[in-house]
Amino acid sequence: MVAPLKVGIAGLGTVGAEVVRLIEQQSRVLSSRCGRGVRLVAVTACSKAKKRGLDLQGVEWARNPLALANDPGVDCFVELMGGAGEPALSAIEAALKAGKSVVTANKALIARHGLKLARAAEQSGAALNFEAAVGAAIPVVKTLREGLAGTAVNRVYGILNGTCNYILTRMEQEGLSFAECLKDAQRLGYAEANPSFDVDGHDTAQKLAILASLAFGTRVSQSAIYVEGISSIAPEDLRAAAELGYRVKLLGVAVRTAKGIEQRVHPTMVPKTSSIAQVMGVTNAVTIDGEGIPPITLVGPGAGGAATASAVVADIADVARGVRALPFGRPVERLRKIEKAPMERHEGGYYIRLMARDLAGTAATIATRLAEQKISIESIVQRHANGVDAVQIAGKAAPVPVILITYATSEDAVYRALDAVQRDKVISGRPQVIRIEKN
Amino acid sequence: MVAPLKVGIAGLGTVGAEVVRLIEQQSRVLSSRCGRGVRLVAVTACSKAKKRGLDLQGVEWARNPLALANDPGVDCFVELMGGAGEPALSAIEAALKAGKSVVTANKALIARHGLKLARAAEQSGAALNFEAAVGAAIPVVKTLREGLAGTAVNRVYGILNGTCNYILTRMEQEGLSFAECLKDAQRLGYAEANPSFDVDGHDTAQKLAILASLAFGTRVSQSAIYVEGISSIAPEDLRAAAELGYRVKLLGVAVRTAKGIEQRVHPTMVPKTSSIAQVMGVTNAVTIDGEGIPPITLVGPGAGGAATASAVVADIADVARGVRALPFGRPVERLRKIEKAPMERHEGGYYIRLMARDLAGTAATIATRLAEQKISIESIVQRHANGVDAVQIAGKAAPVPVILITYATSEDAVYRALDAVQRDKVISGRPQVIRIEKN
Repeated sequence: MVAPLKVGIAGLGTVGAEVVRLIEQQSRVLSSRCGRGVRLVAVTACSKAKKRGLDLQGVEWARNPLALANDPGVDCFVELMGGAGEPALSAIEAALKAGKSVVTANKALIARHGLKLARAAEQSGAALNFEAAVGAAIPVVKTLREGLAGTAVNRVYGILNGTCNYILTRMEQEGLSFAECLKDAQRLGYAEANPSFDVDGHDTAQKLAILASLAFGTRVSQSAIYVEGISSIAPEDLRAAAELGYRVKLLGVAVRTAKGIEQRVHPTMVPKTSSIAQVMGVTNAVTIDGEGIPPITLVGPGAGGAATASAVVADIADVARGVRALPFGRPVERLRKIEKAPMERHEGGYYIRLMARDLAGTAATIATRLAEQKISIESIVQRHANGVDAVQIAGKAAPVPVILITYATSEDAVYRALDAVQRDKVISGRPQVIRIEKN
Repeated sequence: MVAPLKVGIAGLGTVGAEVVRLIEQQSRVLSSRCGRGVRLVAVTACSKAKKRGLDLQGVEWARNPLALANDPGVDCFVELMGGAGEPALSAIEAALKAGKSVVTANKALIARHGLKLARAAEQSGAALNFEAAVGAAIPVVKTLREGLAGTAVNRVYGILNGTCNYILTRMEQEGLSFAECLKDAQRLGYAEANPSFDVDGHDTAQKLAILASLAFGTRVSQSAIYVEGISSIAPEDLRAAAELGYRVKLLGVAVRTAKGIEQRVHPTMVPKTSSIAQVMGVTNAVTIDGEGIPPITLVGPGAGGAATASAVVADIADVARGVRALPFGRPVERLRKIEKAPMERHEGGYYIRLMARDLAGTAATIATRLAEQKISIESIVQRHANGVDAVQIAGKAAPVPVILITYATSEDAVYRALDAVQRDKVISGRPQVIRIEKN
């Protein structure tokens, strides 16, 4: 029997405490699965005095994360403090340099410093596992890193932020505004007091950066991602989407195009029949399009103490079993540099909602301006204020919403056409534009 | 650089040919991911002369599978012949005994001889990987074996047979009979000339046996599974299910109960809003309920050459990387014996459809007989022949369908009540009974 794996945990918040409990509760199964025991030997956290309801008898309390990482009695350093920088960064680096394997749930740190840390892991032959950083218990890192090792990925996209999906779900189901739903999400603890990180798409971007690297062998780079949040989405967009056979989701999308890998986060119209469209509330989901095979979709909890801890313990079990995968699936030197996607060159279908001043004139103008840019219209819907639709367009005094769905075109063509329509002064306000992602 | 992994493939059908192509096409990525090359060195198949469009120059042609398995030039034996017995069984045993790792897509063999083969793998320290045996490219074996290593599973269930799901989807969407849809499935190549293996649930049972072992640490045992196929399902059941908020799916279910692990395959009513209910056509899906965490659902192609080959190559890559997971996640000696679930003790909700001879009398009789068995009714619907529903029950001459949904009860209570109703002669024909699975 091999000696047990000696685990040290830095950070005893909701996730850390749950990991401590799981290691204890699952002790027999873990040693059976790993061929050796998994033993918690040391911990550290901001406050030693805080009541956590954990039995830490016989577990050493380290002075600080760095001391824990350097503790020669620790084989595997588990970082659950969070934060894109210190003290997590130095502690993980120290552990890897000392040849200790590292498990972390820290998406911000991996998105920002993943390459540097992966290099350190490679040099010492240690593992750097971060399944919990994306989609918590959904095994998406393992699937991209190992499960599709022999399959070229053409696209990976997903609902990676539960807060945004909760807000969009309620907006759609109850016809409420973004602001109302955000307030509810905050009250229920799904959104932070400062919700920008979630609703402006930055949380999704960090996770997408990690997935894209695993999928395409590119260097993880958050700054290469185009990011747009959900605050501009109105209930009328969700209603129109539903009528046209779509739903609006905040997606992170990384896709192989003729111009390279495009990485983007934005509100997206997805066909109502797609797997990703069925994902409601705080649930997360990732769809992977592999070369020559139908899409694979993984759905599950993207956050929460128990779900995150489940992934952390699985990562620890891999370390105990002696599995040493390359952190991003390939050697760091082989990861290709990635440029920021020029969104003006993005190609796809578009949803456009305009407020027409005079319907008859507007329709003719829009048709002309779109035709000038060689944009074909898949459908056009004019909605009366009372909610009754009419495809036939008739003159009207007050501004009336007109909704267009285009066939695939380029983003700069769309904006050139809309700029021209605005200069023609036939619409009031700014047009709403939402990209469409086909499955 | 480590020497390349030398692969031998037995079986060059659709999957085998696709694996040969993938190993060639993904050669650079594979060596980058695995830290060593993956090289096809030998093959064997029934006919050497058959045109397959493969470039097998420099690849040895082995006399037979056993010779390939014993070839000292082969490190990893890939079995893609299929069949629950010979020649696959002896060849795999020989390879494992010689310390060679084995990759197979053969669900029948693993369901029947999995334990024996796992023991051989353990003894020699070789890997026995079979991701492709269940759900093709859906990484469900890896998820249960590794991704949830630290999480107790309470239930695993899924749509594991694309043929049945295709038939049920078309029956529901087009109101067609089972026989009509089966004929179409055969015409489209989704069903065999002898469809029994698929539509009677045996294919699902083989896959469920493997999943249950991985999820619960029980000995893989197909004979411990209760199996019921979909041929008795009528379009009116699907219509009634839809009206009551359900869909009918052929599920394989393995669940931890107070009486042990229950394994069963049968048509099942699932809530329309569940992830599994959204899975249409030939697509497969598996949902895993882990202790304390929301369900994880994996959706994707459950069959097809490219999808199966994707999983086979990922398994080969794991072998190349030196990963040696225990075949069923735990040592064979630790796997617990499993008894066949006594379905009469199964507990859950039930859908019951009866043809009432005389409605007023029947309603009273049913209510009495169910009450005698302490069964509570969640809803009752009486459907006129013209398709209009009426909850209020009125007298009528011709037999009229009556549909009941019960609250959770035991299966023997349901059948005792229905036997009594039949003895009362208030219904014509046999009642239709479908189990309900809540998410």
